[in-house]
Amino acid sequence: MTKKSLKFVTFYPMKCMVEVKRGANIFNTAMEAGVSIRTECGGKGICGKCKVIIHNKNAVNALTEAEIKHLFPQEIKSGYRLACQVILKQDVDVTIPEESRIGARKILAFGLERQLPLKPLVRKFHLKLRKPLLSDIKPDFERLTHALSTVSDRLEVDYEILRKLPDLLRKAGWDITTAIWDSCRIIAVEPGDTSDKLFGFAVDIGTSKIVGHLVNLATGATLSVSSIENPQIIYGADVMTRITFAMDSEANLRMLQKIVIEGINKVLTEVCEKARVDSRNVYEVTIVGNTAMHHLFLGIQPKYVALSPYVPTVKSPINVTARELNIKINPNSVVSVLPVIAGFVGADAIGDVLATDFHRLNKPSLLMDVGTNTEILVGNSDDILSCSCASGPAFEGAKITHGMKAENRAIERVRINSDLNVEYKTIGNVKPTGLCGSAMIDVVAEMLKRGIISHKGKFNSQIETPRLKRDKNQTQFVVAWENETATNKEITITQKDIAEIQLAKAAIYAGCSILMKIKSLKKENLDKVFIAGAFGNYINPENAKFIGLVPDVPIRKIKFVGNTAVVGAKMALVSREVRKTAETLSRKIRYLELATDPEFDKEFFDAMFVPHKDLNRFPSVKEYFKKHHRDLK
Amino acid sequence: MTKKSLKFVTFYPMKCMVEVKRGANIFNTAMEAGVSIRTECGGKGICGKCKVIIHNKNAVNALTEAEIKHLFPQEIKSGYRLACQVILKQDVDVTIPEESRIGARKILAFGLERQLPLKPLVRKFHLKLRKPLLSDIKPDFERLTHALSTVSDRLEVDYEILRKLPDLLRKAGWDITTAIWDSCRIIAVEPGDTSDKLFGFAVDIGTSKIVGHLVNLATGATLSVSSIENPQIIYGADVMTRITFAMDSEANLRMLQKIVIEGINKVLTEVCEKARVDSRNVYEVTIVGNTAMHHLFLGIQPKYVALSPYVPTVKSPINVTARELNIKINPNSVVSVLPVIAGFVGADAIGDVLATDFHRLNKPSLLMDVGTNTEILVGNSDDILSCSCASGPAFEGAKITHGMKAENRAIERVRINSDLNVEYKTIGNVKPTGLCGSAMIDVVAEMLKRGIISHKGKFNSQIETPRLKRDKNQTQFVVAWENETATNKEITITQKDIAEIQLAKAAIYAGCSILMKIKSLKKENLDKVFIAGAFGNYINPENAKFIGLVPDVPIRKIKFVGNTAVVGAKMALVSREVRKTAETLSRKIRYLELATDPEFDKEFFDAMFVPHKDLNRFPSVKEYFKKHHRDLK
Repeated sequence: MTKKSLKFVTFYPMKCMVEVKRGANIFNTAMEAGVSIRTECGGKGICGKCKVIIHNKNAVNALTEAEIKHLFPQEIKSGYRLACQVILKQDVDVTIPEESRIGARKILAFGLERQLPLKPLVRKFHLKLRKPLLSDIKPDFERLTHALSTVSDRLEVDYEILRKLPDLLRKAGWDITTAIWDSCRIIAVEPGDTSDKLFGFAVDIGTSKIVGHLVNLATGATLSVSSIENPQIIYGADVMTRITFAMDSEANLRMLQKIVIEGINKVLTEVCEKARVDSRNVYEVTIVGNTAMHHLFLGIQPKYVALSPYVPTVKSPINVTARELNIKINPNSVVSVLPVIAGFVGADAIGDVLATDFHRLNKPSLLMDVGTNTEILVGNSDDILSCSCASGPAFEGAKITHGMKAENRAIERVRINSDLNVEYKTIGNVKPTGLCGSAMIDVVAEMLKRGIISHKGKFNSQIETPRLKRDKNQTQFVVAWENETATNKEITITQKDIAEIQLAKAAIYAGCSILMKIKSLKKENLDKVFIAGAFGNYINPENAKFIGLVPDVPIRKIKFVGNTAVVGAKMALVSREVRKTAETLSRKIRYLELATDPEFDKEFFDAMFVPHKDLNRFPSVKEYFKKHHRDLK
Repeated sequence: MTKKSLKFVTFYPMKCMVEVKRGANIFNTAMEAGVSIRTECGGKGICGKCKVIIHNKNAVNALTEAEIKHLFPQEIKSGYRLACQVILKQDVDVTIPEESRIGARKILAFGLERQLPLKPLVRKFHLKLRKPLLSDIKPDFERLTHALSTVSDRLEVDYEILRKLPDLLRKAGWDITTAIWDSCRIIAVEPGDTSDKLFGFAVDIGTSKIVGHLVNLATGATLSVSSIENPQIIYGADVMTRITFAMDSEANLRMLQKIVIEGINKVLTEVCEKARVDSRNVYEVTIVGNTAMHHLFLGIQPKYVALSPYVPTVKSPINVTARELNIKINPNSVVSVLPVIAGFVGADAIGDVLATDFHRLNKPSLLMDVGTNTEILVGNSDDILSCSCASGPAFEGAKITHGMKAENRAIERVRINSDLNVEYKTIGNVKPTGLCGSAMIDVVAEMLKRGIISHKGKFNSQIETPRLKRDKNQTQFVVAWENETATNKEITITQKDIAEIQLAKAAIYAGCSILMKIKSLKKENLDKVFIAGAFGNYINPENAKFIGLVPDVPIRKIKFVGNTAVVGAKMALVSREVRKTAETLSRKIRYLELATDPEFDKEFFDAMFVPHKDLNRFPSVKEYFKKHHRDLK
């Protein structure tokens, strides 16, 4: 076949040239090639999110109704189209603009997407078996395994498949496709050729949120993403409350397990609907989560994780069939729960390490996965030390008066000018309803810069601005006036909110300090500082330093990496090598119980200051005040 | 410790010296040592079956009430005691008389008992784990597997065990016993030291009967035996009727599976009660059965076994957890279904081969396992050829007017004198209620010898004896008069009964002939003829030849081996090597579909004669008639 008979699309800015399958639109082509384009409807022309720029209008079909509905006239003039509506007539160059790139999404379901050799544990084989004859009486199962002898000479089979095998083979006329897990176990036998239907599901069970990615295991492409609030939240917003509930009775424990599995099934249904995939064609699930979520998902009593000496029941990877757990994929498939590190550093931290390649860094670095519990890791390829701190859900928007998740209508960036007026940017560029984590960091940092709050985080009674409102109960700073908001109510930050943020960042910073002390590292030794978590993708790194959330390192060293936990789960889904690495990491990464360190209390107390009691630890902040001829009081 | 502080018992005739544990009686001691003594109550002094002869009365305790009740005065004088009632004061010699040896039982639940190195797949380990400390935060599961690292460095665990592990370990104070299957899977974790409670269950699922043996996996001793009628019998006495029922619907198939499992659970309950063993301490089950029983037990559609080209769904060994199958042993344990050979030669035939060492014989031999289906094997260590024939349940007592199983009150031997009077022996030496298989063989052979029936099996109208009763419907021969029987009714054999026996033996003989023809063997080449099955243990081999059931070989070559199928299952239970052999045999033993042999019909027709149309095949019968100056008409 010559190039002439084929059509190619080249995606920019990644400069990726892809052959277009007959009849495929640009969206399908991008997905198949692993080039992620934003979508909420899975390419049905409903959501209008998959905007791309076509460089040669004549190379493609005319505008469709869906595009006329979703695109602004100005966009149409500039060559914008919806990727799912565009069919090629000839080769074409396509730019995926910032807003349509997955990395640009505010939901942060995606983190780093790393290149990996595609080696999923599940493989499919289309087979045409010879039917038995009196001269060839090989039994059905042996007929199947004989045809698969190049895969393995010792294949097991799920009992439920065996039961259905004789009728299935004959109804299918001996033309079947089989799915094999880890070259050792037949997990599906299906009539006809279904070898192109091979999907996997990567899940991060967060304390607050369950995030799921549907992956095409044949190409490695992420097909769709969905997330819901962790339904366990009705039994407690934080891990400890849920553990306490589970301790009360076996029934409570079972309830928590049941509802998290229902939640996962809901996310599964959503990702499958978005990508128009039958959930029975999902053949593997990888799960990450903190250790408490891990235990609750498996129905293991998490009590002892919460009681000294805080040991989990198991840290090794666990494989359970989907049927046993009631996960609604192919029932004989394996649900692989990635290994954990310790009672409070879970599989999510392993995911963080895998996604950032932390375990292969030459130079010492720091990683923090900020959530209701924040996991911190310090080290490099030689040795990694980990800890966990109860930072609370402030950065995820909970316990903050006008806090919210990093989603549409959340203020994500804030600047306070020298006249104490406020500029802000909202996700979706619409009227705001609240503040997400990145905005909180900005507000606190900016208030510190402008002297609105003190070194201790207290509002300065000397400041004169209508934005600082004092009533008998509470002092608060107005970020957005009532006429600017979607709710017609002011969006403010209160003294109590500031205290919550101080508690969170102090716990995290103290954890970093203790680990660095034990590893004999100074901030100057850190090569990289990775910040993972769901508090927004546009954190201002200078402001993160200003409030004392991260050590005072040069800004170029700070990397915001989003939800790396689920990326780790996804890497494990597509690569058997990654699973081995995960197991090694689980054994090798050391764990420190922060409570046992005699200096933790002092470190925590000192870090309650903004940015820190000892300003010498934050020379860039000190420098700022010096430059502005002010003292930090 | 010197010998003086220990006590020993030496069992005769096996000359086996065994140390007596403190407080143990002779029955317990024998059982622990693997010396089988007959019992029905499991050593409670209730059944009176465990009679032994004590050579030095002064070495043991005085007679107990139970013994005075069960033993005759003459027996007491001769030194008889009940083994379960005897406690040693000093070393003693004990003879186990014929009637108390397991081999002498008429129930035929036991076959050959062969010596094997004791290597069961399941092993138990008593462990005292260190409790976790802040300085030692190894998780519970890794703490357990670390302690077991000499057993395996890669132990899996059943998910249900993992769930219960944290509470169990702490309630047990970290003092536990674990059961491990095949050095790879933890199937039980129990508080305290339960290492002496390690039992297995071997099952033969016959078309007519389910037989189960409870085995102490720590010693290899058989503790108890039980059997029931296969409850599937209500859906058809023969395999084909049951397969037809299963073909009708998935619900029917499920029903047949359900009731056979209920039957197995009933046998399990009985053997456990007899031996006072908790069924939760049974950690493995091995199952043999013909291929149809095998498929029905696993809930696999057996339809295609019955339709040309008669292929089973699977022949490899199948391991399924007890929980999945609802077998009421330790739920995480493995139920191992032994491999089959072909559609009509099942795991029972593999059991026969294992129990008789058939696959290691140098010289060509013949084996027949007589049942509703009779499996026949011909060959030696080089090559074994097998087939199956539908012989019907006649020899098991079904379809015969006064037929019954080889149990108490069954006539087991018959002789017809020259005056045409009948002598017989009944199992249990009580008044009879019917005829078991061995008696039927005798009756037919003896009637032939006395000319009561002809070469074609027809009653001789010339014979004058009140025992030959003719009415308009039926001619029958009276074996026992009404005043001699437990039912006060005559026990007879009818013309129709004789025809059933002819059909059965003709099918079996024809099968043997075809296999021998294909293997180019004459009867003179046969070194051994093994006859397995449940038709009685005291078959008269001469009479078996006289009716043409077995080829006319010297009597010394004929071995009656009882239920070898269950013995094979038991061997697999205690030896991992035997399982490997079973798998090899399943692959290596060749199968012949008798229906495909062009000579089968003629062979079958000729064998309908008694003993055979061609008397030259039975020179010893020919010789008998020559000697008695009579012709066989």
